[in-house]
Amino acid sequence: MKRLAVIGVGLIGGSFALGLKKAKAVSHVVGVGRNAANLKLAMERGILDSIAADAASAARDADLVLVAAPVGQYERIFADLANSKAPITDAGSTKRDVIAAARKALGKRIAQFVPAHPIAGAEKSGAAAASAELFREKRVVLTPLRENRAALVEQVESAWQACGARVSRMDAEEHDAVLAVVSHLPHVLAYALVHGVAKRNNADQLFSFAAGGFRDFTRIASSHPEMWRDICLANRDRLLQELKSYGNELGSIRKLIQKGDGAGLEKLFAGARDARNKWIRSS
Amino acid sequence: MKRLAVIGVGLIGGSFALGLKKAKAVSHVVGVGRNAANLKLAMERGILDSIAADAASAARDADLVLVAAPVGQYERIFADLANSKAPITDAGSTKRDVIAAARKALGKRIAQFVPAHPIAGAEKSGAAAASAELFREKRVVLTPLRENRAALVEQVESAWQACGARVSRMDAEEHDAVLAVVSHLPHVLAYALVHGVAKRNNADQLFSFAAGGFRDFTRIASSHPEMWRDICLANRDRLLQELKSYGNELGSIRKLIQKGDGAGLEKLFAGARDARNKWIRSS
Repeated sequence: MKRLAVIGVGLIGGSFALGLKKAKAVSHVVGVGRNAANLKLAMERGILDSIAADAASAARDADLVLVAAPVGQYERIFADLANSKAPITDAGSTKRDVIAAARKALGKRIAQFVPAHPIAGAEKSGAAAASAELFREKRVVLTPLRENRAALVEQVESAWQACGARVSRMDAEEHDAVLAVVSHLPHVLAYALVHGVAKRNNADQLFSFAAGGFRDFTRIASSHPEMWRDICLANRDRLLQELKSYGNELGSIRKLIQKGDGAGLEKLFAGARDARNKWIRSS
Repeated sequence: MKRLAVIGVGLIGGSFALGLKKAKAVSHVVGVGRNAANLKLAMERGILDSIAADAASAARDADLVLVAAPVGQYERIFADLANSKAPITDAGSTKRDVIAAARKALGKRIAQFVPAHPIAGAEKSGAAAASAELFREKRVVLTPLRENRAALVEQVESAWQACGARVSRMDAEEHDAVLAVVSHLPHVLAYALVHGVAKRNNADQLFSFAAGGFRDFTRIASSHPEMWRDICLANRDRLLQELKSYGNELGSIRKLIQKGDGAGLEKLFAGARDARNKWIRSS
């Protein structure tokens, strides 16, 4: 692969470029972005070799295009890519909406697009936070389309693997259902907790007595607000379902507390602890 | 201080003993506990110099007694200490119930008891996890009683400071209200999330796609189930109030998602992120 185009040179796009460069799997990276200072930094850090004015010109002569912008911008970006012949992958955290936007904009060229979701983020964002190691041992889910040729899916898979990722495949429905539970819901829960504290009169006092547990619980509430706005809206049906299910779970615990059911609480807490510890040991 | 008695030689009790020993603020530590293997380990690790059969005999000749058992056991432990003349402090995560139990059991000797809460925990428990550094730069809240002599409060304060802690004072009502928000509520939220995942048919699949955000969010769901059962019951009124308030917060976010109010979501997320980042920078 000679030329990679990165649309959205943030944490994910920048790390993909750095990972492929480190693996010597690409020789030139061209970037597109809305933030000139961020693009300048990406040039300085060696993430980019050149900057293009828009996705259409970046994709020209590219061997692969990575779309790594907030999903709310995908429709416009895919419209820009409608006349490109380059293979496209993406890094969107939701897949049904991304695929719908791609189908709408790309039409018959949809076969060029292999949707992907690298499950690796951080509360940091921007090219400044990008790292060649971000995807190492992290999962990347591909949700291939029936139109994709097998060879193209494998090419995209190889690129993510070159960054050190563990790639698996799933359909988009299943992906969005799974991620709603283990990623989108916890983000909303963390944002809700911090918002609920920050709006109080004694917020400073409350924060000053918060310790490591609160810090770790709320780490994901330092995530990118625009990106998480888009994810919440894109996966709305699944997320609302999970919020409802979580509300029921909280309701059950509230009842145990109200009744003073110590045995019930301890059983629930111990079950959760054991399940988590088993997961941590196996991961 | 020559002799320290530790009732409950777990993470907290063991770390208090190790911290005071490291500061050369104590020469002999006697321990009491329910788990013989744990006490043996505490002897091997040099946390304890001797083991006593019960709190009453441990407290004999002690210069300070630390009660560091799950709060559900406090009533029995304070009854054991009713005839002791030694100053007592504790490490309970709730203070109103601890003080009520102490008043009931100690009667006129209540003046000997200076309630304390070290805000330092970990998902690990037991003497194996104890460390002389656990309290370094961590907050310890004293909730002194009107019966306490000032000199006694200062003595207890000095002991916690010798472990490296930043000690502050508050009344028990305020303590329980503050901790309900920044500690007890998040623990319940984390336990609820893990329980809600673990009980599903596809729990293994869900966990296998959970990443760093989920891991940190749920770290406190690996906490000690018995301890958290007791905390939930002891601070029941405040915790139920916070669960209700959190439910309202989630309800507001659910409405924003339902309405597709992207601007509202982004504003809320950005406000939470900014508040958290400000706190992290200042702490």
